[in-house]
Amino acid sequence: LDYQHVQVPFEITLWIMLASLAKIGFHLYNKLPSVVPESCLLIFVGLIMGGIIYGLNDKSPPVMDSDIFFLYLLPPIVLDAGYFMPSRPFFENIGTILLYAVVGTIWNVFGIGFSLYGICQVKAFRLQDVSLLHNLLFGSLIAAVDPVAVLAVFEEIHVNEKLHILVFGESLLNDAVTVVLYKLFRSFCEMPTIKSVDVFAGVGKFFVVGLGGVLVGLAFGMTAAFTTRFTKDIRVIEPLFVFLYSYLSYLTAEMFHLSGIVAIIACAMGMKRYVEANISLKSHTTVKYFMKMWSSVSDTLIFIFLGVSTIGENHEWNWPYICFTVIFCLVWRALGVLVLTFFVNRFHVNTITSKDQFIIAYGGLRGAICFSLVFLLPDFHRKKLFIAATTVVILFTVFVQGMTIRPLVDLLAVKRKRESAPTVGEQIHIRFLDHLLAGIEDISGHWGQYYWKDKLEYFNSKYLQKILLREYDQPKSSIVLLYEKLERKHAIELAEAGQLGHGLSHPSLLNNDRTVITDKKLEDTLNPAVLDNIQEMLARNLYRIRRTGPAYNRHTLPGETEPVEHAKEILILRHKSL
Amino acid sequence: LDYQHVQVPFEITLWIMLASLAKIGFHLYNKLPSVVPESCLLIFVGLIMGGIIYGLNDKSPPVMDSDIFFLYLLPPIVLDAGYFMPSRPFFENIGTILLYAVVGTIWNVFGIGFSLYGICQVKAFRLQDVSLLHNLLFGSLIAAVDPVAVLAVFEEIHVNEKLHILVFGESLLNDAVTVVLYKLFRSFCEMPTIKSVDVFAGVGKFFVVGLGGVLVGLAFGMTAAFTTRFTKDIRVIEPLFVFLYSYLSYLTAEMFHLSGIVAIIACAMGMKRYVEANISLKSHTTVKYFMKMWSSVSDTLIFIFLGVSTIGENHEWNWPYICFTVIFCLVWRALGVLVLTFFVNRFHVNTITSKDQFIIAYGGLRGAICFSLVFLLPDFHRKKLFIAATTVVILFTVFVQGMTIRPLVDLLAVKRKRESAPTVGEQIHIRFLDHLLAGIEDISGHWGQYYWKDKLEYFNSKYLQKILLREYDQPKSSIVLLYEKLERKHAIELAEAGQLGHGLSHPSLLNNDRTVITDKKLEDTLNPAVLDNIQEMLARNLYRIRRTGPAYNRHTLPGETEPVEHAKEILILRHKSL
Repeated sequence: LDYQHVQVPFEITLWIMLASLAKIGFHLYNKLPSVVPESCLLIFVGLIMGGIIYGLNDKSPPVMDSDIFFLYLLPPIVLDAGYFMPSRPFFENIGTILLYAVVGTIWNVFGIGFSLYGICQVKAFRLQDVSLLHNLLFGSLIAAVDPVAVLAVFEEIHVNEKLHILVFGESLLNDAVTVVLYKLFRSFCEMPTIKSVDVFAGVGKFFVVGLGGVLVGLAFGMTAAFTTRFTKDIRVIEPLFVFLYSYLSYLTAEMFHLSGIVAIIACAMGMKRYVEANISLKSHTTVKYFMKMWSSVSDTLIFIFLGVSTIGENHEWNWPYICFTVIFCLVWRALGVLVLTFFVNRFHVNTITSKDQFIIAYGGLRGAICFSLVFLLPDFHRKKLFIAATTVVILFTVFVQGMTIRPLVDLLAVKRKRESAPTVGEQIHIRFLDHLLAGIEDISGHWGQYYWKDKLEYFNSKYLQKILLREYDQPKSSIVLLYEKLERKHAIELAEAGQLGHGLSHPSLLNNDRTVITDKKLEDTLNPAVLDNIQEMLARNLYRIRRTGPAYNRHTLPGETEPVEHAKEILILRHKSL
Repeated sequence: LDYQHVQVPFEITLWIMLASLAKIGFHLYNKLPSVVPESCLLIFVGLIMGGIIYGLNDKSPPVMDSDIFFLYLLPPIVLDAGYFMPSRPFFENIGTILLYAVVGTIWNVFGIGFSLYGICQVKAFRLQDVSLLHNLLFGSLIAAVDPVAVLAVFEEIHVNEKLHILVFGESLLNDAVTVVLYKLFRSFCEMPTIKSVDVFAGVGKFFVVGLGGVLVGLAFGMTAAFTTRFTKDIRVIEPLFVFLYSYLSYLTAEMFHLSGIVAIIACAMGMKRYVEANISLKSHTTVKYFMKMWSSVSDTLIFIFLGVSTIGENHEWNWPYICFTVIFCLVWRALGVLVLTFFVNRFHVNTITSKDQFIIAYGGLRGAICFSLVFLLPDFHRKKLFIAATTVVILFTVFVQGMTIRPLVDLLAVKRKRESAPTVGEQIHIRFLDHLLAGIEDISGHWGQYYWKDKLEYFNSKYLQKILLREYDQPKSSIVLLYEKLERKHAIELAEAGQLGHGLSHPSLLNNDRTVITDKKLEDTLNPAVLDNIQEMLARNLYRIRRTGPAYNRHTLPGETEPVEHAKEILILRHKSL
């Protein structure tokens, strides 16, 4: 027996296997996941395992290594989140999300830090040795909402898209703020005196860390898109580039002390569109599948490790400090959401309701990021107290808030996500309104969201697509594609019903039937996957058709012939089939 | 800048990226890969990189770590090889393959070992200090044909299936022999005296190492199949199990000093059938894609590392020893193939031609396995000589033999692989003959290959499938499925040609056309992917239909009604469409 030799890969494989089997186990009992969120169950499994290890070895089980967490477990989850991020609601609410992520997090950090410092001044609690800076440092790590925990819970409760993106977007983008504040306070802790210039440098760092992350991510994303231009003869390694480049963007950002999370999200969102167009359908299935698989396993491992790491002797218990931490986390978040939403609602027509505000405040779950950060603290005599407080806050938010949020959503009748995808008609109307608004903004000289979107689209189709896409010059009209798809779909249905031969004797009847397919009927006959596909095509191509038509825009000349040709093509096809 | 923190994953990612980019680069120039095998190009890239590293640092570049090779780079390649192994030719030629792999390898080891020892006795060469045992140890590592190198070259030259499986199967299965002999001689080197009982124990170990590997692999394969029964609600982690279980089988086998390569092949071949049936189509695409991707990257990395590791100062040059090693490797392999094939041909109707024999002997490429084993040798004063000799043999076989084998195959007009898949008609006839032969063997009491195959199929359908497959009870007749598929295909074609509406007015003509589709025409209209699919279905289901009919076999009772029902179903469908 030579265990030493294979130990490292063997144990990693076994942990992943345990995580996967636990996931299967939960899903075998259909009732369990509908009551208790999976994250709670996984932590519970971790607690039991930690207990067993503790009982057998009589020493603390191994604690989740912060390096392993930040370098290997977190990136897959964030990559998945970025790649599948619904870009429309995200960019529509980017202002609100940034407000919550930046101002909200700063508010929480200082709120929690200062009020905990106040608690420390009470002599009865015996906490006078915890300085203000230490409290602020603790505040900076405990204030940040955790994307992994939020994703795990919000994926199951199906709230409306806007609410989801507000909480989730905040949890992702607050990473930049957390990184800056955490590192700032940690370096302040080690400095003998703090000058005001250091504080200003800290403020400047926000922009460097956040924007730097975005730039690094976009740079790698564009390189990834460019690389996939040349993989036509070697399809099998296409998926690799998606993973390699996004991981490199994360590592590079971390290397330069920028926000790795922001970088990987920017990379994923930036490359998605071009990579999708360049790589083969099978490669894309593999990319999507593997991303989901990887993030799902990482997520499982994180929660199990959280449970395992909770057991042990690295805690110092102090009732008042721990209780007040939980209370302040809740109170400051609630206050922050109320105040910020008040300002947000003043500038928006589509306001955030008080129910939504409650869910945003209540959905501020903490998770493995806090946990890893608290272990990364420099050694000082109260570190164990911070670890205990962090553990309690995480367990409280994940278990109590995570388990009650679903009944609360039901009770408050919070607006849910639309179960059905928007119809083709709706989709076309939304597009139409977008163009209309862009035109209005352009004419009125108001540089709003639609104006910039339009500019970006122009830049994209004029320069980026030409560089990054492989087959840029032959876009098929989406209407023709849709028509072909419907014809094919119809033919398959006929064949499956065995009517292809039979029905053929009544051509007039059949044709009649086909030409009057209404929008409603169309949706009934198409399954969701096909609809999704059609909508994606529409989303990608409709714009291009309008672009080439006579437009209000200053960039294009009217009178290009393409749309006429398309129309001709459709007419010819239509005529043939009639 | 904090490079230390991200160094390990960053450098790994960069290496993989370099390998992938190198692959893309080669394929951009279409002419290059058709002349020079990719493996040579990659070694060349490695040599250049090694030269650069050597020039910049003025010290030897890092040598490929044997642990990394055996634990991380080799398993993906072997898994891929096992999973996509064409099982029919493999099992048809298993006797010949085992003869080459076991007897052939032993022949080579002792041949090379003893004749090199003879060379060492020549005083002029100054090699008297290399003992017989050391020469045998060297022989045991240099004799084994390398699956990675063989795969890389044979994938590009498209020789006929039998020839391919003979060389490739040998290169995979000789691992058990290599492991045993290498470890045996290494332990002998460290023993003061060798007793005859040790030698007998060594012989016994062959069976333990080989059969143990098969058993470990099959056990993990069956567990994997069983696990995928329960993943219906959580499709996204299905591909994971395929990778986890096969990797665990490899590690477990290595842990017990069994043959990891044999184990992972047994695991992959054992689970493939059941896993494929259990997991979703998308999961299966992901599995296949990722396997190919992973093995392709591993393969690239191995050859690049081979090149990099060649540069450096760990070589001791001795002209006679190195030249004679190359010569003996060639001569003993050629002799071995000749002698063994003589015996094989006496017992087979379908003989191995002399051209095939030449290619088998010439295709005995050495690669990274030898290279890793030579670095794992215990330190002794002539280790550097062995390293130099191994490097030369590898480079000679990969460059000279690898580059000339394609012209030689052309020159000798070696029988090539059939470009087209066998037709449905052929497929059915092959099946029919299988059953016929199984019946003849059963009646004549000759327990041949067909008899055992039949028994295995019976065991499989009676027990294994019931335990391992999720939806065992509802197999749809393959004929019905094929018919449905053809109908659908036809309908799509009609729709695409725009004739669905137009052609409908001549139903008689159309139907006539459809019913007289000949086998030839069918092939023309179906693309290869669809045909593959149909053949797979036939291969899986045809057997079952026969089984349930009145059979010559002792295990089944005649008179089951299923086939009658199928026939009825087909008739009804046919009638409808007419």
